[in-house]
Amino acid sequence: MTLEHFSIIDTTLREGEQFYKANFSFKDKARIAGLLSDFGVEFIEVTSPCASPKSKKHCKALTAMGLRSKFLAHVRCNRDDVLAALETGVSGINFFFHSRFFHNRFGQDKSPQKNLDIIMDVLEFTRQQAPGIDIRFSIEDAFRTRLEDLIVIYGAVIESGLVHRLGVADTVGVALPGEVSRIIRLLKTLGIAQIEFHGHNDTECAVANSLAALEAGATHIDTSVLGIGERNGITSLAGLVARIYSRHPDLIKNKYQLGQLKLIHETLAQCLGITIPFNHPIVGEAAFVHKAGIHTNSVINDPKSYEIIDPGDFNALRTILIGHKLTGWNAIRDRVKQLGLDLDDHAIKQLTWKIKKIADTTPMTMPQVDHLLKEAAQ
Amino acid sequence: MTLEHFSIIDTTLREGEQFYKANFSFKDKARIAGLLSDFGVEFIEVTSPCASPKSKKHCKALTAMGLRSKFLAHVRCNRDDVLAALETGVSGINFFFHSRFFHNRFGQDKSPQKNLDIIMDVLEFTRQQAPGIDIRFSIEDAFRTRLEDLIVIYGAVIESGLVHRLGVADTVGVALPGEVSRIIRLLKTLGIAQIEFHGHNDTECAVANSLAALEAGATHIDTSVLGIGERNGITSLAGLVARIYSRHPDLIKNKYQLGQLKLIHETLAQCLGITIPFNHPIVGEAAFVHKAGIHTNSVINDPKSYEIIDPGDFNALRTILIGHKLTGWNAIRDRVKQLGLDLDDHAIKQLTWKIKKIADTTPMTMPQVDHLLKEAAQ
Repeated sequence: MTLEHFSIIDTTLREGEQFYKANFSFKDKARIAGLLSDFGVEFIEVTSPCASPKSKKHCKALTAMGLRSKFLAHVRCNRDDVLAALETGVSGINFFFHSRFFHNRFGQDKSPQKNLDIIMDVLEFTRQQAPGIDIRFSIEDAFRTRLEDLIVIYGAVIESGLVHRLGVADTVGVALPGEVSRIIRLLKTLGIAQIEFHGHNDTECAVANSLAALEAGATHIDTSVLGIGERNGITSLAGLVARIYSRHPDLIKNKYQLGQLKLIHETLAQCLGITIPFNHPIVGEAAFVHKAGIHTNSVINDPKSYEIIDPGDFNALRTILIGHKLTGWNAIRDRVKQLGLDLDDHAIKQLTWKIKKIADTTPMTMPQVDHLLKEAAQ
Repeated sequence: MTLEHFSIIDTTLREGEQFYKANFSFKDKARIAGLLSDFGVEFIEVTSPCASPKSKKHCKALTAMGLRSKFLAHVRCNRDDVLAALETGVSGINFFFHSRFFHNRFGQDKSPQKNLDIIMDVLEFTRQQAPGIDIRFSIEDAFRTRLEDLIVIYGAVIESGLVHRLGVADTVGVALPGEVSRIIRLLKTLGIAQIEFHGHNDTECAVANSLAALEAGATHIDTSVLGIGERNGITSLAGLVARIYSRHPDLIKNKYQLGQLKLIHETLAQCLGITIPFNHPIVGEAAFVHKAGIHTNSVINDPKSYEIIDPGDFNALRTILIGHKLTGWNAIRDRVKQLGLDLDDHAIKQLTWKIKKIADTTPMTMPQVDHLLKEAAQ
């Protein structure tokens, strides 16, 4: 497992532009790119400079910012797109090949040869035009492509020696972790050093699939902030960070500025005019809230009892709720101690039941709970 | 793989009550339970009748509704909780055992014997009090429990013949799909027919873990609507449905009333005063929106090209956006056809670039796009 050498390719400024509410101004793009670079993502993918007049202009201005993250342009397999991308100063080109010819189910031309001709032409052209540029090649929808076609195409691309990295894309969110694992291991046997995984989240498996990819030997994972992208999006940056943190906390703490994560998300949400989903990992407002009695009591004694992520590492705060019907007497006792009140266990148990009874109709705020405890201690 | 025999235990009315914004009135509970039953979930888990005065009253009233779904009470391993639960008319008791004694990392008493005494006492007591009741037993946090302790406890519980179902709980969201698989397979070798999986979503892997559980032989999966629960919650109902649908569409269509899913979510969001996260599977507002040119063109010809879930099965609508800078000329041509306009391909390509240029600053609405196309056709 080469997990320590993986890189994040954040594609909020490409896949994220395909989110239906996204319409980033240059100012938005510059802010987001700057924050992602501060956080430490190794690469930032941007929309093809051919997509619209401003796409090219913005791309040029982004690469001129001198950020630590490297920029990659996401382009179709044609020469015009390559020429436009090469004018923008990006470090690399992420080619994608629209794979409607490969689908099992659509019954179109399944012969990969004519597709391969198009692909090899553009790769050779790019290498001639820009010998030093980083090249990735990916076909769309790898998990619904006939495996023999995938191997023919990817085998030929590897053999050509023209690309640095192959992409494995779960374009429709259909893959299972075991399938991701198998396809990555297979590609590694073909002899390519870098493999990138791009996973959509239609069935909420993008993060699990991304970790499966890394554990199978993938070197690059695509993410976007809040997971934004086509339909309901892709692997979220915070989700991937949470998942790796839960297994390899030191690795992720050493690689990225975790304290920046919240600001990136708040900034993106502001640019889009949306709120961060309450249940988003790490940055959602519910991520570190403890409520049921057994949970709050244990967390007071040892946060690790119900937390695998330390909110302190992310400049976030833990919230322990006690003014509700599921509250427990240990949590109330802890609050009594915090307030320096003199109440014995029997009294605290009675007060706990009183709080449950009141909160059974309307939850109590912390000042209301404190007032009740102080009154009882008088 | 016994996937066709699985059951959903929806715990919106138990785990979901531990969501920090949840404070359900009886009316809320009755509406949610009614909709879940109409949808077809086999079981509805409710908060322990001992949690608060109203919890018991509400539980009694829910079981009296005569719904098709069966009610299960989630209770601690003590006799008082059992007696309270038995008064409410639930079909089964879901015991959970707070496992702080089992954690590897906490170094407390690791001997399972004294825990086992408590557990066996309450199981025997329950069986005596209510010979016909369905009994599940689960310890918390199985994935951070020493495996030998888990086997000693679960082995003894199975041998006693007192329980119908064992629970495997990923209480902190730490498990990987492969680990879920292994532990379920191991438990099956101990000779228990029913295994329930409960997975938290701290690292966005709850859905992947739930499918791994089912494929390894689990028979029951815990869900909640929108995944609400402690912290950022558990396996979401829509996520699990999307995941199984993507692999076994006929199975899920035959088992559940998929057209009801949206209403359940809208009702819950209303009860909680929250909005449905835009990226939630199936019911989030982005789930079936197509934007980039290649996507929209393909989806017009064949929705399956970029959709593994048919929105029609869920009474949802597909949205194809064309008035933005990432639009494609095939999508514009399709709109020209829809409007019955007479424009050749050359004109349509020019209009596409015009739309991209205008939308590069501000996206166009559909009436604006239509107006532009109609003007050009005159």
